[in-house]
Amino acid sequence: MSIIEQISIEAAEAAQILALVSTAKKNKVLKDMAQALRDNIQPILEANQRDLAQFRQMQPSYAMIDRLTLNEERILSMADGVAAIAELADPVGELRDLGERPNGIQIQKMRVPLGVICMIYEARPNVTADAGALCFKSGNGVILRGGKEALESSLAIAKVLHQVLEQHELPKALISVVPEPDRGLLMELMEQTETIDLIIPRGGEGLIQFVTDNSKVPVIQHFKGVCHLYVDKDADLEKALGLLVNGKTQRTGVCNALEGLLVHRKVAKEFLTMANAALAEHRVKINACERAMRYFDDAKVLNENDFGEEYLDLEIAVRIVDSMEQALRHIQRFGSNHTEVICTENQLAAKRFQRAVDAAVVMVNASSRFSDGAQLGLGAEIGIATTKLHAYGPMGLESLTTEKFLVTGEGQVRA
Amino acid sequence: MSIIEQISIEAAEAAQILALVSTAKKNKVLKDMAQALRDNIQPILEANQRDLAQFRQMQPSYAMIDRLTLNEERILSMADGVAAIAELADPVGELRDLGERPNGIQIQKMRVPLGVICMIYEARPNVTADAGALCFKSGNGVILRGGKEALESSLAIAKVLHQVLEQHELPKALISVVPEPDRGLLMELMEQTETIDLIIPRGGEGLIQFVTDNSKVPVIQHFKGVCHLYVDKDADLEKALGLLVNGKTQRTGVCNALEGLLVHRKVAKEFLTMANAALAEHRVKINACERAMRYFDDAKVLNENDFGEEYLDLEIAVRIVDSMEQALRHIQRFGSNHTEVICTENQLAAKRFQRAVDAAVVMVNASSRFSDGAQLGLGAEIGIATTKLHAYGPMGLESLTTEKFLVTGEGQVRA
Repeated sequence: MSIIEQISIEAAEAAQILALVSTAKKNKVLKDMAQALRDNIQPILEANQRDLAQFRQMQPSYAMIDRLTLNEERILSMADGVAAIAELADPVGELRDLGERPNGIQIQKMRVPLGVICMIYEARPNVTADAGALCFKSGNGVILRGGKEALESSLAIAKVLHQVLEQHELPKALISVVPEPDRGLLMELMEQTETIDLIIPRGGEGLIQFVTDNSKVPVIQHFKGVCHLYVDKDADLEKALGLLVNGKTQRTGVCNALEGLLVHRKVAKEFLTMANAALAEHRVKINACERAMRYFDDAKVLNENDFGEEYLDLEIAVRIVDSMEQALRHIQRFGSNHTEVICTENQLAAKRFQRAVDAAVVMVNASSRFSDGAQLGLGAEIGIATTKLHAYGPMGLESLTTEKFLVTGEGQVRA
Repeated sequence: MSIIEQISIEAAEAAQILALVSTAKKNKVLKDMAQALRDNIQPILEANQRDLAQFRQMQPSYAMIDRLTLNEERILSMADGVAAIAELADPVGELRDLGERPNGIQIQKMRVPLGVICMIYEARPNVTADAGALCFKSGNGVILRGGKEALESSLAIAKVLHQVLEQHELPKALISVVPEPDRGLLMELMEQTETIDLIIPRGGEGLIQFVTDNSKVPVIQHFKGVCHLYVDKDADLEKALGLLVNGKTQRTGVCNALEGLLVHRKVAKEFLTMANAALAEHRVKINACERAMRYFDDAKVLNENDFGEEYLDLEIAVRIVDSMEQALRHIQRFGSNHTEVICTENQLAAKRFQRAVDAAVVMVNASSRFSDGAQLGLGAEIGIATTKLHAYGPMGLESLTTEKFLVTGEGQVRA
């Protein structure tokens, strides 16, 4: 048996045990894990230093080093994250009543774990604790296959979590780290359809596409975020300006940042004059359609086919539209099914936009930056799905479960 | 552009229109479709005769001929099925309130169609109308790729549905039949990840495995049904006998028929004596474990590794177990995550069984034959999922939808 088969089978067997563990016990384990992380800052930092020493030889960018680096503050925040998951409601065992059939049988649905979830990610050691805790709370086994750059850090974190599992007489295989992150083992992992129920890749588009193309296990995809703000003719322009500046500048390298601004022609002059000043102050580069050019001191013209870029930087595409219909068509063509925002005081327009836009999160008068599991009240998120099957949008604990039917009768048979 | 690309793109564009059509209009269209089927029995029967004439040259089995054959009664029942779907609640647009965040933004979820669903099936012409109507009601476009044996029948049914779509100024591409069911086009269909959101294969295990192995589009799988009845030590044995006979004999060639009987040793003698008589009367072949052999007049002995067969016939596997735990382990090993039944008057045992068994449908004192969309109150079903992602168990209208997040604020931005 290969190491991957062994890890997967052990994870599946461990998950069967965890599926029946009480919420109280799971929460106690999570709190103990948080404390154990706090108590083991030193060994985790030492492992991280070994990872960093190796990684620096590859002359990585500052951003890559930053992603890989742990420090005391980051480990404490990781521990707080794990403790916070203990406080979330447990979806497992939730019952939904579907009523009684004419023959008297009672129909319910009960929420149950998926089984084994495999995370495939790059050099973010914090995913080991975050995903480990979310999968644990939702009753799932997890197999963590991070980048090799973060392997020592991940193993050190996993070792701390394993000690807590053992104290509670739970199998270590509930949280497994693939110890050799080479491509051959990754390919093999993606073939374990008998034991792995779901693969969630997190990272760049290349990684996600690679996993999607090669996995035989179902994959939940999170591609890019090309989010728009549509400023309606009935918008409160002060609110719109706040949403624009926050969505574009509060943090730029994230998938819920604004990449496009659509403005109704009736308010274009007034709003774009305000936007020109505000965006200049934040040094945002402007790419504008022909009609919008005149309102900006400094802008590059953007042709019809060049919209839809994910800048992930202080840069935005601006377009004047003649109607909400045109805005909807633009979003349909250039959006990425992630997050779309309308600013309007017109309730009917707001409702029409929310109904018509095909995106995981559709907002009225709120910043696109709220499109994340914690901000939407899911507690924490394991990813954001931009495809629709099983989950659409930020994925919290509920997304890591499914429902089975329960039927209760008194001996009824089918005629 | 290939014919498959064209069909898929047109289906996706048509689905965007349908997503915004009102429930009232969809119901009117469905009722008109039902009437149109009733009004066009003759041309559909003529097309079916052409299919049958061709198919008979291949010397098929009676069962295969029977599946392909339409008659007036079957077409009327197909029409009734379509009309019944008009009566079901429309899941599209349903709102679920997730409450208000501390910053005052309101979070909701809205149910929306998946987009385009592709059905891949064998020689059952009725799927064309059933799946067409279910996808239409749930706001999805559907691409139907049935077996070539039923092609003329499917095209004739689709023609009737298309006339109704046109009368209501809706695009025909909402219900598309792939006109050349060859394998090359099937492979191409399974690569349309940009336009097709979900593939549901219906048919034998070979077809489902082929689609699962080759599709780049997500697939919902329905593998076999190896369903067990566990007769607990606290069972009402009369009820248990009713469940056994109904589950095994009411219809044998279906996935929710019983294939295994597990009996607690404390009631084995009494129950298996009753079962021996009842099953003999229905000419059910018995395959029993060593211990159970003595209670049957005529049985073949079954070794440990030979359990788990899907007989789809008047044949059953019988085993005596020492405890519910042993029954659970047997089901874990030999079950197929479809439907499992316990017969017991002990509420605690019932609850433990329902929680512990990993199957799409877990029943207490009710026949496994109720495991189907109509019987469980879903109205109609488009398939039964035995994998857990997105749907688990009988799939009704809700399974053909997903939820998007709606956020409503008053200009809130992220700090």
